[in-house]
Amino acid sequence: MLDRTDPEGEIAKAAAKYSNWGRWGEDDVRGTVNFLTEVKRREAAALVRRGVSFSLAQSFDMNGPQKGWRRRTNPVHTMLDTGTDAALGNQGFPHGIGGADDVIAMPLQCSTQWDGLGHIFDHGKAWNGRPAERVVTSDGDLVTGIETLAAPVVGRGVLLDVGRVIGADGELPDGFAITEAHLTATAEAHGVAIGSGDLVCVRTGQLARVRRDGWGEYAGGPAPGLSFTTAGWLHRTEIAAIATDTWGFEVRPNEFDDAFQPLHQVAIPNMGLLIGEMWDFEELAADCAADGSYEFLLAAPPLPITGAVGSPVNPLALK
Amino acid sequence: MLDRTDPEGEIAKAAAKYSNWGRWGEDDVRGTVNFLTEVKRREAAALVRRGVSFSLAQSFDMNGPQKGWRRRTNPVHTMLDTGTDAALGNQGFPHGIGGADDVIAMPLQCSTQWDGLGHIFDHGKAWNGRPAERVVTSDGDLVTGIETLAAPVVGRGVLLDVGRVIGADGELPDGFAITEAHLTATAEAHGVAIGSGDLVCVRTGQLARVRRDGWGEYAGGPAPGLSFTTAGWLHRTEIAAIATDTWGFEVRPNEFDDAFQPLHQVAIPNMGLLIGEMWDFEELAADCAADGSYEFLLAAPPLPITGAVGSPVNPLALK
Amino acid sequence: MLDRTDPEGEIAKAAAKYSNWGRWGEDDVRGTVNFLTEVKRREAAALVRRGVSFSLAQSFDMNGPQKGWRRRTNPVHTMLDTGTDAALGNQGFPHGIGGADDVIAMPLQCSTQWDGLGHIFDHGKAWNGRPAERVVTSDGDLVTGIETLAAPVVGRGVLLDVGRVIGADGELPDGFAITEAHLTATAEAHGVAIGSGDLVCVRTGQLARVRRDGWGEYAGGPAPGLSFTTAGWLHRTEIAAIATDTWGFEVRPNEFDDAFQPLHQVAIPNMGLLIGEMWDFEELAADCAADGSYEFLLAAPPLPITGAVGSPVNPLALK
Amino acid sequence: MLDRTDPEGEIAKAAAKYSNWGRWGEDDVRGTVNFLTEVKRREAAALVRRGVSFSLAQSFDMNGPQKGWRRRTNPVHTMLDTGTDAALGNQGFPHGIGGADDVIAMPLQCSTQWDGLGHIFDHGKAWNGRPAERVVTSDGDLVTGIETLAAPVVGRGVLLDVGRVIGADGELPDGFAITEAHLTATAEAHGVAIGSGDLVCVRTGQLARVRRDGWGEYAGGPAPGLSFTTAGWLHRTEIAAIATDTWGFEVRPNEFDDAFQPLHQVAIPNMGLLIGEMWDFEELAADCAADGSYEFLLAAPPLPITGAVGSPVNPLALK
Repeated sequence: MLDRTDPEGEIAKAAAKYSNWGRWGEDDVRGTVNFLTEVKRREAAALVRRGVSFSLAQSFDMNGPQKGWRRRTNPVHTMLDTGTDAALGNQGFPHGIGGADDVIAMPLQCSTQWDGLGHIFDHGKAWNGRPAERVVTSDGDLVTGIETLAAPVVGRGVLLDVGRVIGADGELPDGFAITEAHLTATAEAHGVAIGSGDLVCVRTGQLARVRRDGWGEYAGGPAPGLSFTTAGWLHRTEIAAIATDTWGFEVRPNEFDDAFQPLHQVAIPNMGLLIGEMWDFEELAADCAADGSYEFLLAAPPLPITGAVGSPVNPLALK
Repeated sequence: MLDRTDPEGEIAKAAAKYSNWGRWGEDDVRGTVNFLTEVKRREAAALVRRGVSFSLAQSFDMNGPQKGWRRRTNPVHTMLDTGTDAALGNQGFPHGIGGADDVIAMPLQCSTQWDGLGHIFDHGKAWNGRPAERVVTSDGDLVTGIETLAAPVVGRGVLLDVGRVIGADGELPDGFAITEAHLTATAEAHGVAIGSGDLVCVRTGQLARVRRDGWGEYAGGPAPGLSFTTAGWLHRTEIAAIATDTWGFEVRPNEFDDAFQPLHQVAIPNMGLLIGEMWDFEELAADCAADGSYEFLLAAPPLPITGAVGSPVNPLALK
Repeated sequence: MLDRTDPEGEIAKAAAKYSNWGRWGEDDVRGTVNFLTEVKRREAAALVRRGVSFSLAQSFDMNGPQKGWRRRTNPVHTMLDTGTDAALGNQGFPHGIGGADDVIAMPLQCSTQWDGLGHIFDHGKAWNGRPAERVVTSDGDLVTGIETLAAPVVGRGVLLDVGRVIGADGELPDGFAITEAHLTATAEAHGVAIGSGDLVCVRTGQLARVRRDGWGEYAGGPAPGLSFTTAGWLHRTEIAAIATDTWGFEVRPNEFDDAFQPLHQVAIPNMGLLIGEMWDFEELAADCAADGSYEFLLAAPPLPITGAVGSPVNPLALK
Repeated sequence: MLDRTDPEGEIAKAAAKYSNWGRWGEDDVRGTVNFLTEVKRREAAALVRRGVSFSLAQSFDMNGPQKGWRRRTNPVHTMLDTGTDAALGNQGFPHGIGGADDVIAMPLQCSTQWDGLGHIFDHGKAWNGRPAERVVTSDGDLVTGIETLAAPVVGRGVLLDVGRVIGADGELPDGFAITEAHLTATAEAHGVAIGSGDLVCVRTGQLARVRRDGWGEYAGGPAPGLSFTTAGWLHRTEIAAIATDTWGFEVRPNEFDDAFQPLHQVAIPNMGLLIGEMWDFEELAADCAADGSYEFLLAAPPLPITGAVGSPVNPLALK
């Protein structure tokens, strides 16, 4: 049982128990992505039966959920050149060629994303026990920048549609804490087993709900998500990464009286776990429900933005 | 023979000959990506033998080649929160958690990218014959925005290392026009055949050169690249997409006395061809040369930035 | 009487009646700022009695009123270097020097601002009758860019505190249309006369209200403001500029059944009037009420952002 | 004599000698701007004779001098709406109204600017002796943000055209160190005396040179500028602020064997001096030379960007 009044103590216990510091050497910058081996990638490629691909990304535009918390805005996309200019002959190019160019300004955590290993610290320590101030300065993440994960993040994806298996009408309510029992029951219902190196996709159904009802407090408010108590499962299964269709991966409100994302504090700096947030599983989940197959090749490479502590991503599932 | 003095005439001829307007219906927004079918994706997945993955993206940072032409800058990545703040206890979070967040401002054409179908116009016409001013306004590409290609761009990648096969020391000189003969000879040397739905990767070696010698005029200056005369090959082979390791895909200076990217004018608005630029084939090419296998699964989904006429991308090759 | 059902007709009548096209020659780019002569500036300087200065700008930060309409966000200010980095010795500078730098991304209309003459068009015509498409392209305002007003905007400022004179408790309610009678009564109450070349500051009190009650719909919603019927007064008085403490200068909802900022359509492209929005008159107004003097030197130079159709500004009143 | 080999020692001596810490109380956030009193502002207003105004700002656009050092780019100005869209009827507004909006992304130190008091630290100390890490975090300058100077920066401006008085053809060569003797000689030649609360404008002529010859290394390279030895003069004269037409105010290369902006280290954190850079005195200087009057009212309010360590500014001189 969690002591609701002592997040710091509970976090410390879990951090000690599930730490992967040193597991892949002092210089490691990949954390649990190390579990994703060539063998796993070969097996993942062999899962492709039909050749159907699914984008697991939400849109990147001004209609997103961000409201300004910690200066997180929705992406601002503007044009440097347009077709209207081209049509009016305003561009000064020869032989009838015209062009359009564009630019974007966005937080790297604004929409579908990976959290890099430099995204969260535990008492001033970053992944692998490094001092946070030596890792992430104003110049960005000098050690575990997201560019270090440019190549490896492709492997076996498994969808755990907890919303569909456990929830009513396919959705978990806000504040619902997904436990190991829920994860296991869902995997059994789907006929899959979670194993080392997997990229686990947990659908809560919250995204379906906010699409229907409006964003509301999707960015930072109450949400279904992983219970703090799943830390052991996250560690024991040796998954390479986990992603949810919610803003923050773990259940909100958090399971302590006064806390902020305690599972992040265990999972990222201590376990070295790659976490995906705001993924869109709706189309994939419908397909999985239809064909009964919840595993696929998943290619989800972050953009190699040097020194970034996160990256927008368009994860592709190929069945 | 091209009439060097008449780009407009030559473009008009090629446009007429190689147009795909209407080929996939009036409402089409995917162009040649339509050639990339489920069968092709299945075949591509079957190419994965070793489980090795390669990122084909250049870095996204201030050390890039952009110099401000058409307001194209290198990406500006800044931090919203840092490890130095966390270490100094400046963040106001409970129980010892600290965090780092970041933000980016960048042209969508600044580094490794796809050109969307709204990127280039021919005499005021966009892909499929639509009026440019109805397609790309200040609000972005309202019809063929890059988000329409979020899911399908995964298939068989083939590397044509023209630099290694045709060039001296693995590199083509700037201004070298790659012809159909060069492409065919390279494919033969590699033991591969280009077919419908392929994602063709053409390595010129220019990127290796500028890495060694400095960016110089990489962004917009002289470069090896596809000859205007390859338009027929691009059309006939029914490839889904083509990408190069250069800024602009086609040879520069262009093969006319006074011209600007004439092959773009044929390929994008008339043929509906998806073009990738500034890709990094160096590591992949070395591997292909080593194992003799130049085909692979290629997953290169653009970020679904609503209305964008291009997208940064981290293309993953899986062998 | 305005015909509420015919905004287009009423606008056309007012535009014809109050047009200044050609008044300062075909090449004019300054509009009513032409009224602000050297004589007026000398007279304005002579108004300075006490040497007290007031900033009339709202803050530029994430706590502003913008909600994303037309991609207008609040300013995003981020640091390139910080004191935390400097304190931790992370910056690599010699002899103990440390530094902080920063960057901003913001709409030019996000906070206290001037609307440039290229900001509004009337049936495709910009100021002085120029075709809108020849004036403002994706490259910005090629003719009347705000940089053309870099030097002249300093002169006699007059505060008309309509909120205090006409309103209850110093504030006009949302939807209150300020008429010529209200303006005249306020000037009389203050003992000032509005004259040619003046920079008129109209305080409605709405800013005081939203500061107390929350932004609500300050950005675009109901507000007190100038009645469409003041167009004649704006023209006849030959004022150089007018600014309000509201988002949009004119009353909202507008005084027609279906309309959007009809007074802008008359004032900017037809009259060439410089309009300021979201100014903060609170401190100045209290001072004016206290000392009974409502006129001052006003320096409000826009930032010379080449081609901008507006500019953030920190207007200084010197009494 | 400066010991060229010991910048740290020389800086320490000057810092001790010319420190203003505590001079205006423990809570002070204005530094030398405190010298700019109401009396000084009244006297400044009385200097206005002709009513002519001059903008002292360089342009804000992509044609600026920035080359990316410390992620300083030139401003990127893009349009959210354009006249081309309006002309083509693409905007969806009623009764023939059309509009243009725009957005900017820029470093606050990219063009004509004020350095805020949080811009430079001396051995981890900010202005008034505060710990740098408590003043400027990733959230910006929490104490001496430039918004604290929104109102007071208007007073007597004095142009010291050192380029014209001391230089050949009106320009000082790069690397020229302006000493107290040069400043005094220039003031004498102009018939002005520098006094407490003045806003001193030092023209070197470098801007005229780079306008003629190209930017070259204007941003950060060799330049004429104030000698380190002027620290005493800067302190003794009790000026409120000083600005130059160069990138960095002090002479470059700096006057030590291995140093970076040593005078900044004395002037900003220790003296609390407001420093302006990249100002444009060309038009004003010509006028002063013509009418023989080198003093004027100067209004140079920074934009109140909350927490900024600098601000773009359009300084207005009114003669």
